[in-house]
Amino acid sequence: MSLPSCDALEAYLHSHIPVSKAMGVMAQSVSPTEVVLAAPLDPNINHKSTVFGGSLGVVATLACWSLVYVNLMELTQSSDIVITHGDISYLRPVNDVFEVSCVCDDPSQWERFFTILKRKGRARITLDATVGEPKDPCVIFSGTFAAIAHR
Amino acid sequence: MSLPSCDALEAYLHSHIPVSKAMGVMAQSVSPTEVVLAAPLDPNINHKSTVFGGSLGVVATLACWSLVYVNLMELTQSSDIVITHGDISYLRPVNDVFEVSCVCDDPSQWERFFTILKRKGRARITLDATVGEPKDPCVIFSGTFAAIAHR
Repeated sequence: MSLPSCDALEAYLHSHIPVSKAMGVMAQSVSPTEVVLAAPLDPNINHKSTVFGGSLGVVATLACWSLVYVNLMELTQSSDIVITHGDISYLRPVNDVFEVSCVCDDPSQWERFFTILKRKGRARITLDATVGEPKDPCVIFSGTFAAIAHR
Repeated sequence: MSLPSCDALEAYLHSHIPVSKAMGVMAQSVSPTEVVLAAPLDPNINHKSTVFGGSLGVVATLACWSLVYVNLMELTQSSDIVITHGDISYLRPVNDVFEVSCVCDDPSQWERFFTILKRKGRARITLDATVGEPKDPCVIFSGTFAAIAHR
């Protein structure tokens, strides 16, 4: 199956996870090694007129989930993907429209994930996402996702 | 200042953090030792027809934030409250309307928090929240919140 376009990923998220639509989540780029999502300030604003921490967690979760989703599309057997653990550090406030980037360009990490999934029918992968400059991020997120193959 | 009613807390969250309104967050109970929030399935549904993990993180964050907010209302000096770290474990799917309970009934933990806030102008507290039965929860959340006193 070919890689989804940004429009296709965004439409999938909006229709299956309506919170993403309410938050104005946009897909900015999609590849097998990186997914970048973005969201505007207004629907995600908090009492300090910065981005609500909960919204940052949601968009980071969706960016990582999407990168697993995109990679699993290459397999012939379909799987469910669920988050099992999330950890988020808020280092600095985010004041405006923001991008969340989830990168995983280590082929061995994907290879291990696919191998275990094919052998055991389920596998886990931990992915990181950041908001802001990767070397000086505002937010660092780490999420563990389980894929469960359909029988 | 007196404790806010459930309606007052809910109205505050909906007006200052609009994501909480989009998610249908409701305040179920408010006391200095426990805040219980709830949210329906429909606006928080995911691709598996269960509650989206990101929504569970948002409502857990809001429950803990609200318990800090309620406790700080007792002080004469006002403070900002921001989340600095969150950790969430998803143990089982949540299939319907859900409640998130944040409990902190250890007086010494609040005492330490207030003392440091008064002395240094800022202090941190870590609070836990759960979804489901406390002894057998579906979701466990731990959040660290910083209070910064207005000068």
